[in-house]
Amino acid sequence: MNENEIRKIVDDIFSPEKMTFNKLLGFKINLDDINNPKIIMKMNGNLVGNYYFKILHGGAISSILDTVGGVVAMISVLKKFEGNIEELPEKLSKISTVDLRVDYLRPGKGEFFIATAHVIRAGNKVCVNRMELRNDISDLVAVGTGTYLVG
Amino acid sequence: MNENEIRKIVDDIFSPEKMTFNKLLGFKINLDDINNPKIIMKMNGNLVGNYYFKILHGGAISSILDTVGGVVAMISVLKKFEGNIEELPEKLSKISTVDLRVDYLRPGKGEFFIATAHVIRAGNKVCVNRMELRNDISDLVAVGTGTYLVG
Amino acid sequence: MNENEIRKIVDDIFSPEKMTFNKLLGFKINLDDINNPKIIMKMNGNLVGNYYFKILHGGAISSILDTVGGVVAMISVLKKFEGNIEELPEKLSKISTVDLRVDYLRPGKGEFFIATAHVIRAGNKVCVNRMELRNDISDLVAVGTGTYLVG
Amino acid sequence: MNENEIRKIVDDIFSPEKMTFNKLLGFKINLDDINNPKIIMKMNGNLVGNYYFKILHGGAISSILDTVGGVVAMISVLKKFEGNIEELPEKLSKISTVDLRVDYLRPGKGEFFIATAHVIRAGNKVCVNRMELRNDISDLVAVGTGTYLVG
Repeated sequence: MNENEIRKIVDDIFSPEKMTFNKLLGFKINLDDINNPKIIMKMNGNLVGNYYFKILHGGAISSILDTVGGVVAMISVLKKFEGNIEELPEKLSKISTVDLRVDYLRPGKGEFFIATAHVIRAGNKVCVNRMELRNDISDLVAVGTGTYLVG
Repeated sequence: MNENEIRKIVDDIFSPEKMTFNKLLGFKINLDDINNPKIIMKMNGNLVGNYYFKILHGGAISSILDTVGGVVAMISVLKKFEGNIEELPEKLSKISTVDLRVDYLRPGKGEFFIATAHVIRAGNKVCVNRMELRNDISDLVAVGTGTYLVG
Repeated sequence: MNENEIRKIVDDIFSPEKMTFNKLLGFKINLDDINNPKIIMKMNGNLVGNYYFKILHGGAISSILDTVGGVVAMISVLKKFEGNIEELPEKLSKISTVDLRVDYLRPGKGEFFIATAHVIRAGNKVCVNRMELRNDISDLVAVGTGTYLVG
Repeated sequence: MNENEIRKIVDDIFSPEKMTFNKLLGFKINLDDINNPKIIMKMNGNLVGNYYFKILHGGAISSILDTVGGVVAMISVLKKFEGNIEELPEKLSKISTVDLRVDYLRPGKGEFFIATAHVIRAGNKVCVNRMELRNDISDLVAVGTGTYLVG
């Protein structure tokens, strides 16, 4: 499957219309570089977790990390896919997070945040990814590791 | 500190006005039994993570688990608190999640979900909690373990 | 597969001769109740991790938790197995830990320790287990969660 | 505290005589570069976890990762230490692992293995480290993340 086809499919599945939670949190998925997908989230008054410090809620952090890991898991499945295109929706609908670890490293301060991910284990059944969240001055806010079912 | 004082403080800090993210996701915190706090979240069209199955986004799951673990961490701090009441806001504002593991066990299907938590390590510096999420027929949807800084 | 057949296979694979690391640490696997397998480890001078307190090394704790989780994963595979007996060795040899979380709750003090485990997600591809380690007075020393590849 | 003093203290606490578990598994701690400590473990017949493939037991992997994370946590405490030298033993004896995640990425094949670690969160109470294990041809066998109590 070529890069443009992959982009189209991932954009569709993670679109705000279909994965409505991504809209709720304001995720913008950027697939310009298919080997290094990003999710950008702007800070806004609905994402506050700590009133004293006006910082990002831990749940917004775990959500964006889980999602960017899922994007990378899906891209890794699509790159290897050689089956019939009609089998694809069902196959993709089954990709899911098995478990997730998040380490909160710094307070989530910033006007926007960027989440990235890369594969550390690319299996036929499970894919293990590491994720990072940085703020608008590139400070590392949180990291995560997720195990995704892919086959 | 007595139970009613604890309820008042926790309700205030986790209120939808202060922790706005909880409002965004529709968390209702129930402290009737202070030793077994609950968070209830109704399913709605904004929380969807998988278009094919119309199930809860993994981020909504990790968010509610992180939050209920935080409620339990805060209650455990308040129960032990013997200092001056004026020191409390600063002390409480520093309670934060260090790390979180979430295990996604079943698809998040249901009209509503209930998250609970209990302490498994009650230290002066860190508190480790285990959390559970069940759906409207009491199926275990996900479990988590979180390490919280408390001192 | 009946319980005695399962016992025989698990005893063989986790035997001190084959899984030599279990001998090094002194693991005794007890399958009397196949639905509640145990591993017992006696404290000895080779397992010390903290010279001041003469307590169990964290590595001995993570090792026994990983192992008892693996025992439970294997039993769960064997209970469902309906294939040809000749395919079994290859199938079983592929069961492996994908990831493990360990929470160290109390110092590892005691004359002996008992590890137990149970399944929290029983899938065809992955099995997620929770493990516990208790000392000789039944104090909870550590807990863990492990994701195992089983199919 | 200067680098040689740090080396001497860490070498003593993690020595095979004091931390006997490290001797049992054959850990050799290398502090030549204090900012990049290593633990080397030679493969031997006592460390086998899978008889069919003659690979390292998962417990040996989690043990070396936990230990190298502990070395890095201790070095980070010593670098900052400005108190009285007599308070040091008690302070250091309290450094302990709170929780650990290990991701097993490849079978543990090789004549020897090298574990490294670095700090990702350097707090006064907790220190969060990431660890790696590579084999004799530098393949990444496993990674881990550990939260350590340091204050």
